[in-house]
Amino acid sequence: MPRTAETAGFRFNHTMIRVKDPKVSVHFYTEILGMDLLSEKNMGDFTLYFLGYDHDNGSLSAEEKEKTRFTREGVLELTHNHGTESDANFQGYSSGNSDPGRGFGHIAIAVDDVEKACERFDALGVQFKKRPSDGKMRHIAFILDPDGYWIEIVPGVLRL
Amino acid sequence: MPRTAETAGFRFNHTMIRVKDPKVSVHFYTEILGMDLLSEKNMGDFTLYFLGYDHDNGSLSAEEKEKTRFTREGVLELTHNHGTESDANFQGYSSGNSDPGRGFGHIAIAVDDVEKACERFDALGVQFKKRPSDGKMRHIAFILDPDGYWIEIVPGVLRL
Repeated sequence: MPRTAETAGFRFNHTMIRVKDPKVSVHFYTEILGMDLLSEKNMGDFTLYFLGYDHDNGSLSAEEKEKTRFTREGVLELTHNHGTESDANFQGYSSGNSDPGRGFGHIAIAVDDVEKACERFDALGVQFKKRPSDGKMRHIAFILDPDGYWIEIVPGVLRL
Repeated sequence: MPRTAETAGFRFNHTMIRVKDPKVSVHFYTEILGMDLLSEKNMGDFTLYFLGYDHDNGSLSAEEKEKTRFTREGVLELTHNHGTESDANFQGYSSGNSDPGRGFGHIAIAVDDVEKACERFDALGVQFKKRPSDGKMRHIAFILDPDGYWIEIVPGVLRL
């Protein structure tokens, strides 16, 4: 339906999850999933990492990335509460997919070729929750990020 | 950085959260937050609702919405496990922001005018976690969706 005037400027900007170790997680989201680090903000007790797929193929300046992270869709915000990465008593974060904590489900990455993407994830040592060959849904997969959050790998093409 | 060939086709397609009552939640995300219902899929024991901001101002056909929900960014998937809406013993879902269940943080909507958006949310009876006038961060707000998930309201303009 047409957008109303009051919400015409609204966009679904980002999704935030907490991570134990940003070195591990930022590596995962940039090197394995191919996102770009748009912005990093040390807030004192915690640091925020904003990531998103680069739609401009490397042409954006740091200032433009900073700008785009407020205006675009598809941004992932990782919150690192300082110290969790080296705290032996830290219990880890809930993925949201089991009780207690059930509520949040997953994020999803659309790819051009699910099989090929999963072969690469395998070669990179990524953990799978569900390979394309598991279960009934053969066209999708679920991988786990370093904190155990589920990431659905979906075909970014029309299936009707 | 430039995208590598292996991840050049990747997009951050959607974020999934579970909801107790889809009538209440779909109303909230469409009528109050202004998203469009792109697709609704009854999967037997559960139904999936895919929502996103309409970038084409009402010009998309149902088939095009179905297509765009696999290819675009900024899609919100609501999962309704049938029966929760009328189950008096249902405990509700964790927002992810307190123990146990801490992990998932929030989604964020970028708006052109945070103050004006919040005045409208107030008039519509939306619950606030943090009004713009609360605390130190005067330029943002947090509202609650019907299940208690946090939604950050951020200005979709450059702040440096």
